[in-house]
Amino acid sequence: MAHSIAEIARALGAEAAGDLSLRVVRAAEPAMAGADDLALAMDPRYADGLAKGQARAAMLWPGADWQALGLKAAIFAPRGRLAMAGLSAMMDPGPEISPGLHAMTVIDPTAEIGAGAAIGPFVSIGRGARIGARARIASHVAIAEGAVIGDDALILCGARIGARVRIGHRFICQPGAVIGSDGFSFVTPEKSGVEEIRKTLSQRSEIHEQSWVRIHSLGSVSIGDDVEIGANCTIDRGTIRDTVIGRGTKLDNQVHIGHNVQVGEDTLLCGQVGIAGSSRIGNRVVLAGQVGVNDNIFVGDDVIAGGGTKIFTNAPKGRVLLGYPAVKMETHVEMQKALRRLPRLGSRVAALEAVISPSSAADRPEED
Amino acid sequence: MAHSIAEIARALGAEAAGDLSLRVVRAAEPAMAGADDLALAMDPRYADGLAKGQARAAMLWPGADWQALGLKAAIFAPRGRLAMAGLSAMMDPGPEISPGLHAMTVIDPTAEIGAGAAIGPFVSIGRGARIGARARIASHVAIAEGAVIGDDALILCGARIGARVRIGHRFICQPGAVIGSDGFSFVTPEKSGVEEIRKTLSQRSEIHEQSWVRIHSLGSVSIGDDVEIGANCTIDRGTIRDTVIGRGTKLDNQVHIGHNVQVGEDTLLCGQVGIAGSSRIGNRVVLAGQVGVNDNIFVGDDVIAGGGTKIFTNAPKGRVLLGYPAVKMETHVEMQKALRRLPRLGSRVAALEAVISPSSAADRPEED
Amino acid sequence: MAHSIAEIARALGAEAAGDLSLRVVRAAEPAMAGADDLALAMDPRYADGLAKGQARAAMLWPGADWQALGLKAAIFAPRGRLAMAGLSAMMDPGPEISPGLHAMTVIDPTAEIGAGAAIGPFVSIGRGARIGARARIASHVAIAEGAVIGDDALILCGARIGARVRIGHRFICQPGAVIGSDGFSFVTPEKSGVEEIRKTLSQRSEIHEQSWVRIHSLGSVSIGDDVEIGANCTIDRGTIRDTVIGRGTKLDNQVHIGHNVQVGEDTLLCGQVGIAGSSRIGNRVVLAGQVGVNDNIFVGDDVIAGGGTKIFTNAPKGRVLLGYPAVKMETHVEMQKALRRLPRLGSRVAALEAVISPSSAADRPEED
Repeated sequence: MAHSIAEIARALGAEAAGDLSLRVVRAAEPAMAGADDLALAMDPRYADGLAKGQARAAMLWPGADWQALGLKAAIFAPRGRLAMAGLSAMMDPGPEISPGLHAMTVIDPTAEIGAGAAIGPFVSIGRGARIGARARIASHVAIAEGAVIGDDALILCGARIGARVRIGHRFICQPGAVIGSDGFSFVTPEKSGVEEIRKTLSQRSEIHEQSWVRIHSLGSVSIGDDVEIGANCTIDRGTIRDTVIGRGTKLDNQVHIGHNVQVGEDTLLCGQVGIAGSSRIGNRVVLAGQVGVNDNIFVGDDVIAGGGTKIFTNAPKGRVLLGYPAVKMETHVEMQKALRRLPRLGSRVAALEAVISPSSAADRPEED
Repeated sequence: MAHSIAEIARALGAEAAGDLSLRVVRAAEPAMAGADDLALAMDPRYADGLAKGQARAAMLWPGADWQALGLKAAIFAPRGRLAMAGLSAMMDPGPEISPGLHAMTVIDPTAEIGAGAAIGPFVSIGRGARIGARARIASHVAIAEGAVIGDDALILCGARIGARVRIGHRFICQPGAVIGSDGFSFVTPEKSGVEEIRKTLSQRSEIHEQSWVRIHSLGSVSIGDDVEIGANCTIDRGTIRDTVIGRGTKLDNQVHIGHNVQVGEDTLLCGQVGIAGSSRIGNRVVLAGQVGVNDNIFVGDDVIAGGGTKIFTNAPKGRVLLGYPAVKMETHVEMQKALRRLPRLGSRVAALEAVISPSSAADRPEED
Repeated sequence: MAHSIAEIARALGAEAAGDLSLRVVRAAEPAMAGADDLALAMDPRYADGLAKGQARAAMLWPGADWQALGLKAAIFAPRGRLAMAGLSAMMDPGPEISPGLHAMTVIDPTAEIGAGAAIGPFVSIGRGARIGARARIASHVAIAEGAVIGDDALILCGARIGARVRIGHRFICQPGAVIGSDGFSFVTPEKSGVEEIRKTLSQRSEIHEQSWVRIHSLGSVSIGDDVEIGANCTIDRGTIRDTVIGRGTKLDNQVHIGHNVQVGEDTLLCGQVGIAGSSRIGNRVVLAGQVGVNDNIFVGDDVIAGGGTKIFTNAPKGRVLLGYPAVKMETHVEMQKALRRLPRLGSRVAALEAVISPSSAADRPEED
C-alpha cells in the first residue's frame, strides 16, 4: 500500500519538504532501506545509515539538512516515536480475516454481531453474546455466553473470552489470551498455615492435614475502552463483583491478573507481570517486566516500578520503586552500593577491633 | 436460580434466623446488594455497607443482631470464607455446554466417553482416550491418544491434554492449559558450560562451540483426584516416568511444571510459579505468586514460601521461606532491616576510624 | 516398537556386551523396569535399583560388571545423558497425526504444503503460506498469511504462527506457543514518567495525564533451523525489522520474547524467562528459569545466568551471573554471606562505639 510523502505528513500533522508526491511502500531502517522505502532516521545518529541505504525519502529529526543527506523528500518528526505511532498505523496491513462469517463457525442464533464483522474459521460465540460493529475476530476464538464487546474490536487467534465478560470499544486482544478464567480462591475447613503466617510471620502451631475447598467465581471481568491485552495473558473473574481493567490500559504478554483486582486507566503492565487477588492498581501506573504485586495491596496513581520489583505493601501515588522487596528506587541503588562495599566494611571493623582490643579480637571465634 | 434462606442454610450446615422462606437470586457485596440479593457481610466491618444497600437477607458474622441491621432474614457463618465456598458452589451457573457431542467435533471411534457428557464445538479426542462420566468439555479442547480422565471433569476452552496423560476424578482445567508438553532436556556432546558451573560456581575452562541434542520425553503426566489446573499453565511430560501432581493440589494461572517434577497432595501453587525439572514438592505446600524452585530440589511438607521467593536448596518440612535466595522468613526480615541501616553503619565505622586513626582515615581513598 | 540391543548400540555408536539379539520395548528406571525394558543405569548409584527391578538388559556406566549385576545384555554409555538423547529419539512414538490433510481444516488454496504432510483437525493455514516437506501439524494450529516454514516441522496443538513469520528446518513448536504477536510499544504525546525516570532515576517533574498511542509492529519474526519453542511461549513481531531467534536455540515453556529482540545460536532460555524489547542475546547463552533481561541490553556469547537473575546492564562474553540486580555469581555468593553476618556486624560496631565513647553511645537514639 503506497502513500505519498504529502499524505503521510498530513496524517501525522508533520512538516515535509522536497518532492511531496514521491510514494513509499514500507518503513525501513536507514541502512536497509530500498528506493521505495521511507527511512526512519528521527535522530542524528542514524545519518550514517542513510548513506548506506537506498532511501529517497526519510522521516528526519527537526532541522535536519535533508538535501545534504542525499534525499529527494523528508518528513520532520519533532517527537520521533510519536510520529512512528502514526506512521505504523498507516502502514500496518493488519491480519487477513475475510469479511462476513466463515462457514466453519459455531455462532449461537441469539448472539448479536454488529455490522461489518469479519469472523474467521473455528470461532465459537455463545448464547446472547453481543459484539459491536466492524469486529475482526481471527480463527479459533471462543466468546462465551452473555459476553458484551464494543465496536471495532480486533480479537486474534485463540483468545478465550468468558461468560458475561464486558469489554468497551476498540478492544485489541492478542492470541491465546484468557479473559474470565475462574479465580484462585480456596479455603480450608480450619485455619490454614497461610492464615497463621500472615499474623505471626513465621510461628506456626500444630499443622493440620486438610484439603482445600473451592470458592467459585460468581463475578466476571469488566474492561474499559481502548484496552489491549497481550498474548497468553490470563485475567480471572471476580468472586462477587467483577475484576476491572480501566480505560486505555495496556497489558503486555503473559500478564496475570488475579480475581477482584482493579486496574486503573492508562496503565501499562509489561511482560509477565503478576497481580495477586484483590489488589488495586491506580491510573497511569507503569509496572515493568516480571513485577509482582502481593494480594490486597494498593498501588497509587503514577507509580513506576522497575523490572522484577516485588511489591508487598501499599505504594503511595507517584512513588518510583525497585527491588525485592520493593523500596524507593534511590534507596535501592544506595542499598546495593552499600552491599557491594559490605565485605570491605567487615574488614575495616575487624581492623578497628584489633586496635582497640587486640587480645579479645584474637580470641573471637570464626563466624559464619 | 433462586434459593430460599432455609435451603442455603441447610446446604451450608449453618444457623439461620428470620423469614427462612425468603428467596435470593445472587450473592452481592452489602453496599451494592439489591432486594433479591443475599448480602455477604461475614465481618462486623461490613455492617455499614448493609445500610447503604437494599438487601433483605444477609450472611452475617456469628452473634450479629440481624434485626437491628434492618434485615428480614440472616444466615450465620462462623468461618466466613468457608461459608462463601459452599454458597458460591450453589450459585455458580457454570459454563454453558450443550449436553451430548457437538456436531463439529472430531472424536476417534475408539475413544470412550462416559455417560452424561457435554462436549462443545471444535473438540478433538484421540485414539483410545477414555473419559469418565458426566464430563463437561468446552470448545477447542484437544485430548490426545491414550489419555485417561476420571468422572466429573470440567475442561475449559482450548485446554491441551497430551498423549497417555492420566487424570483422576473431579478434574478442573482452566482455559489454555497445556498438560503433557515435552520436557526441556538437552545435552551437548561434550561437557557444557552449565555442567562446569554447577561444580565450580564460576570458573570455566575453554569454551566449546557445540549444539544441543534433544532428550525426548518418553514419560507422560499423572494427576490425582480433585486437582485444578489454572489458565495457560504448562506441565511437561517426564523423561522416563511420569511427572506427577498429587490429589487435591491446585495450580493457579501460568504455573510451569518441568519434566519429572513430583508435586504432593493438597498443595497450592499460585500464579506464575515455576518448578524446574526433577524437583519434588511435598504435601500441603503453599508457594505464593512467582516463586521459583530450582531443578532437583526437595521442598518438604507444609513449606510456605512468600511471593517471588527463589528456592535453590532443599527446604525442610514446615519451613517458612522468603527472599532471593530463599531464607527463613524471619531471617529475611532481619536481613532487610540491617540492609536499610547499612549506609548509616558505614558512616559510624568511618567515624570510629577517624577517632582511632585520624591521619590514616584522612588518607583513605574514596572507595566504590 | 521393539529394538534389539545390537540395533540400539549401533544407533548410539556405543559398545555392547552379552546377548545382542535381546529385544527391549521401553526405557525404564532400574527399580521399575520389567523384563522387556531397557533399564537406564548410567551411574554406579543406580546399581541397587537394578537388583530391585526385572530388567534383563541395561544401559550402564563404562566398565560396569554387567554379569555381576545379573543382566543378560548391556550397552555402555560413556556420556549417559547423550546416550539418553539417542535412545529417547529411537523410542519416542511421537504424536499421532494422520497422514494427509484432515477434512476439517481450512487451508487457503494459495498455500503450499510440502510432500508427506500430516495435518490434523481444526487447522487453519492462510493465503500464500509455504510449509516444507514432511510437516506434522497437530490439531487447532493457526498459520497466518505469508508464513514460511522449512522441512520436517513438528507443530503441536494450538500453536499460533503469525503473518509473514519465517522459520527454518526441523522446527519443533510445543502447544499453545504464539509466534508473531504484536510488540508492546506505546508512546505518549508528551514525555512520560518512564522517560524521565530513565534519565533521573527517581526525580519527576509535574505529572501529565495522558493516554498511550500504539506503535504498530510492521516487522515479523525470523527463526533459524533446529529451533524448539516451548508451550505457551510468546514471541513478538519487530517494529520495523524482524525479531530474530538464531539457529539451534531452544526455548522452554512460557518464555516471553519482546519486539526487536535478537537471540543468537545454540542458546537455551529456560522456563518463564522474559527478554524485554530490543535486547540482544548472544550465542550459547544459558538463562535459567525466570531470568529477566531489561530492554535494550546486550548479553554476550556464553553468558550463563542462574535462576531468577534480573539483568539490567550489558553482560560481557562468558560472564556467569546471579542475583537481582545481576552480579557475577561469585560476587553474589560473597554479598549474601556478608549480608547474613550483617546483624552481628552491627553489634560489633556498637560494642566498639561503647568503648571509644561510652557516654555518646548511651545517648544515641534507637534507629530504625
